[in-house]
Amino acid sequence: MMIIMQTDATQDQIAAVVIRVEEYGLRAHLSSGEERTVIGAVGDRRPVMMDQFLHLPGVDRVVPISRPYKLASREFRPEDSVFPLDGVQVGDDGIVIIAGPCSVENRTQLLETAHAVREAGAHALRGGAFKPRTSPYSFQGLGEDGLELLAEARQVTGLPIVTEVMTPEQISLVARYADVLQVGARNMQNYALLHAVGESQQSVLLKRGMMASIEELLMAAEYILSHGNERVILCERGIRTFEQYTRNTLDINAVPLLKQLCHLPVIVDPSHATGKWELVAAVSRAAVAAGADGLLIEVHPHPSRAVSDGAQSLKPEPFAQLMTSLRAVARAVGRDL
Amino acid sequence: MMIIMQTDATQDQIAAVVIRVEEYGLRAHLSSGEERTVIGAVGDRRPVMMDQFLHLPGVDRVVPISRPYKLASREFRPEDSVFPLDGVQVGDDGIVIIAGPCSVENRTQLLETAHAVREAGAHALRGGAFKPRTSPYSFQGLGEDGLELLAEARQVTGLPIVTEVMTPEQISLVARYADVLQVGARNMQNYALLHAVGESQQSVLLKRGMMASIEELLMAAEYILSHGNERVILCERGIRTFEQYTRNTLDINAVPLLKQLCHLPVIVDPSHATGKWELVAAVSRAAVAAGADGLLIEVHPHPSRAVSDGAQSLKPEPFAQLMTSLRAVARAVGRDL
Amino acid sequence: MMIIMQTDATQDQIAAVVIRVEEYGLRAHLSSGEERTVIGAVGDRRPVMMDQFLHLPGVDRVVPISRPYKLASREFRPEDSVFPLDGVQVGDDGIVIIAGPCSVENRTQLLETAHAVREAGAHALRGGAFKPRTSPYSFQGLGEDGLELLAEARQVTGLPIVTEVMTPEQISLVARYADVLQVGARNMQNYALLHAVGESQQSVLLKRGMMASIEELLMAAEYILSHGNERVILCERGIRTFEQYTRNTLDINAVPLLKQLCHLPVIVDPSHATGKWELVAAVSRAAVAAGADGLLIEVHPHPSRAVSDGAQSLKPEPFAQLMTSLRAVARAVGRDL
Amino acid sequence: MMIIMQTDATQDQIAAVVIRVEEYGLRAHLSSGEERTVIGAVGDRRPVMMDQFLHLPGVDRVVPISRPYKLASREFRPEDSVFPLDGVQVGDDGIVIIAGPCSVENRTQLLETAHAVREAGAHALRGGAFKPRTSPYSFQGLGEDGLELLAEARQVTGLPIVTEVMTPEQISLVARYADVLQVGARNMQNYALLHAVGESQQSVLLKRGMMASIEELLMAAEYILSHGNERVILCERGIRTFEQYTRNTLDINAVPLLKQLCHLPVIVDPSHATGKWELVAAVSRAAVAAGADGLLIEVHPHPSRAVSDGAQSLKPEPFAQLMTSLRAVARAVGRDL
Repeated sequence: MMIIMQTDATQDQIAAVVIRVEEYGLRAHLSSGEERTVIGAVGDRRPVMMDQFLHLPGVDRVVPISRPYKLASREFRPEDSVFPLDGVQVGDDGIVIIAGPCSVENRTQLLETAHAVREAGAHALRGGAFKPRTSPYSFQGLGEDGLELLAEARQVTGLPIVTEVMTPEQISLVARYADVLQVGARNMQNYALLHAVGESQQSVLLKRGMMASIEELLMAAEYILSHGNERVILCERGIRTFEQYTRNTLDINAVPLLKQLCHLPVIVDPSHATGKWELVAAVSRAAVAAGADGLLIEVHPHPSRAVSDGAQSLKPEPFAQLMTSLRAVARAVGRDL
Repeated sequence: MMIIMQTDATQDQIAAVVIRVEEYGLRAHLSSGEERTVIGAVGDRRPVMMDQFLHLPGVDRVVPISRPYKLASREFRPEDSVFPLDGVQVGDDGIVIIAGPCSVENRTQLLETAHAVREAGAHALRGGAFKPRTSPYSFQGLGEDGLELLAEARQVTGLPIVTEVMTPEQISLVARYADVLQVGARNMQNYALLHAVGESQQSVLLKRGMMASIEELLMAAEYILSHGNERVILCERGIRTFEQYTRNTLDINAVPLLKQLCHLPVIVDPSHATGKWELVAAVSRAAVAAGADGLLIEVHPHPSRAVSDGAQSLKPEPFAQLMTSLRAVARAVGRDL
Repeated sequence: MMIIMQTDATQDQIAAVVIRVEEYGLRAHLSSGEERTVIGAVGDRRPVMMDQFLHLPGVDRVVPISRPYKLASREFRPEDSVFPLDGVQVGDDGIVIIAGPCSVENRTQLLETAHAVREAGAHALRGGAFKPRTSPYSFQGLGEDGLELLAEARQVTGLPIVTEVMTPEQISLVARYADVLQVGARNMQNYALLHAVGESQQSVLLKRGMMASIEELLMAAEYILSHGNERVILCERGIRTFEQYTRNTLDINAVPLLKQLCHLPVIVDPSHATGKWELVAAVSRAAVAAGADGLLIEVHPHPSRAVSDGAQSLKPEPFAQLMTSLRAVARAVGRDL
Repeated sequence: MMIIMQTDATQDQIAAVVIRVEEYGLRAHLSSGEERTVIGAVGDRRPVMMDQFLHLPGVDRVVPISRPYKLASREFRPEDSVFPLDGVQVGDDGIVIIAGPCSVENRTQLLETAHAVREAGAHALRGGAFKPRTSPYSFQGLGEDGLELLAEARQVTGLPIVTEVMTPEQISLVARYADVLQVGARNMQNYALLHAVGESQQSVLLKRGMMASIEELLMAAEYILSHGNERVILCERGIRTFEQYTRNTLDINAVPLLKQLCHLPVIVDPSHATGKWELVAAVSRAAVAAGADGLLIEVHPHPSRAVSDGAQSLKPEPFAQLMTSLRAVARAVGRDL
């Protein structure tokens, strides 16, 4: 933490800040320029309340030096985290494709999709049983009935299941049916939920909030890691910007940056990141080329009948074509698919 | 809902869209320009899945016509919602001031603040017992001990209590101690929580998410209203933008716009909206001048010792001075304080 | 400038950075924590290229310490800049109201508006003769004919004229007719234009770009000041955010913050900041309450016939009512109008 | 244009809107739902002032139907625009790589870079002689001396030159030396400049403003096209968002979307889009995989001595390695490099 004094700070004000720094058991390093003094507070592995210094007279700004995430950082764990997702490994050279409908709607829809995505080469099946919806009047998901359909789809296709969990209490129920617990973008800072999935044994797919910074995403992962669960997959799914032609703006920069800062697997959701099925293929290829460890893609046999997210869902045939083109891109960047 | 066809859409494609509109029990109105055809789907009081039309051949865009919120709208209820907050009325001519520390830290801190804000004329006491924190290593709140201190503060000052609830299970506990349940910005789209506070009897203070549009805030209120609780106070607390000199950007436009679209009381949190105590007074006056029904202000007797949000907390004396200046502004716009 | 080293930086890497700092004639202060070393480069009143350090091995980040603007800062000039705008003073206790149509359309429209706003108490007349328009097919302004109409309006009403200049070459022409040269939001970083108005003798109204940070606005002002023109009025006119219900988001925080950081007068344009005439009155009152030194308001006698910005223009009568309510708010915050 | 009436609009108000629509020579189509009436204004190939309707009593919103750009649209010209850039074609199957330093600093630097990027396979040399800089105290470019160095670099390497033009008056000078006129992000809505480059015979590289929507970028291209110059290259260079770990956020969605909406070549600037040289390679590969027609990459022989943008410049060797990996990605998506 560096405390930057105002240009007109007095010697007494500087001394008072130093005393406060030392109260915290830290050492103060003064650096006095022609214009102003900067006080470094050294030894700060513990959280120190930067805010507190902003009320001391003569203080202009406080700048953090340490990154606030530890367990998620490459500094803590230099090598990539790799863990199994029922057969396939997530985080190694192979690209993992998770595909399926936004919502589980009924048995026919789900099984038809599950067969189609397995046929095309997907490694896991996604599908929502509990649905966070902007409107209270929209379809809210089939709940446990949906989970049972997902279990049946797993049985007949062998694909592991990724599905969302919305509250701490749902975890034990969902964990009986699912292989990966998804924490949705709107819940990325639902700390009670992060705490609870952190105590579960299941892998967690953590979606970046639509207005969450990369640092906040890593802090959300830190919540889960610090409660004992090391199997966290980060998912970039587009952020909210001023651009209105697309539903969100895929932050493709985040892919190599997260891989640099953090050891956890990073996947991309091109469906939510664009909101338009016509853009999904191009953006999926971009994600793999940028170094993503996997993709989460919405596929529906009849998007124009889908109860949610039809506009961004691929039909099975374009999905199969996309898989073919993704294999070429994966090879081009030295990855397998 | 208006379905805008592509410029090269065929007659068959147009006919297929019309058939689909009629399948939903709606009437289709065609409007054919020189450039393209627009199909109006009339009769849409029920939710219709706009997304489904985007996969039909020849469709360019779909534009909603109805507002998605009903119970929250002025069209549903033209007059202002006014309800009591233990003595004072929220939503009528009087400006309601809710003040207090970010976190309840200990008995002395809370009682000292409670007395000071009551003295200065505040109508309610805020203070967090359960704290959503970005870092798992930060202070997470005193929990039930904090609630008991709040109850004591209410007893000795007579001020009603506003405090945050983070999960559905906490509601019954918090409701035993608090007069108003606060739903925090990070939980604005935690639908399980919205559902649960919607079923409680307590007033709800709903903070706008830092990433939430005005429409999404109204939809979050709609969740609560649709579950039977009509006592919802909306709180604008700043949105996230590219500007970095302030913690958030107060969306002052939202104040008159929410009052125009919606019948619920609208208050402003100048502390989070700026993140800087030096700006709180000016922005508080602006909020009242813009038509806000109240303010939620962080006050702490020793901000440079505060365990959270010290940088944006006012000390008691500047808060008392602010109250004086707010009275003048309130009078200037025909309100009471 | 503080150079923050990576946690695994070697002693040789640290030494190399120190040598580079000293090459610039600066002193290096080392501050070595348990986790990493921070190198302060002291003596940096001259621009130093922070970017250059980011390629040196072992460097993690570089943090600026000095503010990049000097002439615009309160540190350079603690007292408020006040200068005359043909009779009225800008920047002192009086609130200055500049009102008029978006575009000068014709003689009748302009004179009718000029009389109406003078009657209501406005201090200056705005009106565009050269118009920056998003579409090449939109009305581009009357050019010099428009300037002549503005001169006539000044003659008959006595109101000084504020009008936009879009290129360096237009300046001498526009300056013959206008009292204040407006630099539009889209040209806030048109450095050739900033340079040129900096060399003129006319007052400049500098609008914040819709994408510009407060620091960038101050740097744009610095361009003008550094070329010798000290009469710069800053104008907050809303920034671009994700919110779509309004045309822009008025950054009301910017008003007190600019007044704190900078000595120049700060005015607000509530018309562009909202894009909706229904919101203009509330937001105008908020701006005055927040400490703005003036307002720039679009007024048109027949907004539903206006060739530009009709949706955000007030008719003369609501403008006159607004002036009355602004007087009350100005008094409440100790200002005159 | 669809005019959406308020739910409580009267028959008289609806009739008045219809009369106004017909005054414009348009036909009005009424579509009356249970909730409200929508009036379609048909025949609108000419610009119609949507804003004007917003002041008519009973009107709630106005929704545009036609896209505002014509000459830039695929509807106007379905096939890709392809044009030569001194030898190579831009916009066909080949990927065009434009590389070089941010600023032309001196003869040695420029020639060393020019040779290196040609060696690695680049097709054109970039380098700034006139530099738009945020600070008036920063290096502003070598001006005409820089142009002469660029001409020399072209002579010895055979690479065409891309360089920025900041004002209409610079065009004739710059055009004597350069093959492509670059319009920078900060000037994307400098309409005088767009007008002037539209009248030149030179190819134009138009950079998207950091806060410009895709529609505004297309409208800026429309300005150039409508003044007679058809050789416009669009450049996505990152937009401004809340994310602070990177300088900008590359809008990768924009690449396939621009290719869908518009016939012009689309290239990507990964250097400005990230601001970090470590991310440039991954993001460059992503851009090619997403369908970009080319890249604009900053290369400098000694980034830690660069007078501008050192942090985002590649050294020659990593640039050559990047070229190799880009060839593989280009092949994977059926393109040449």
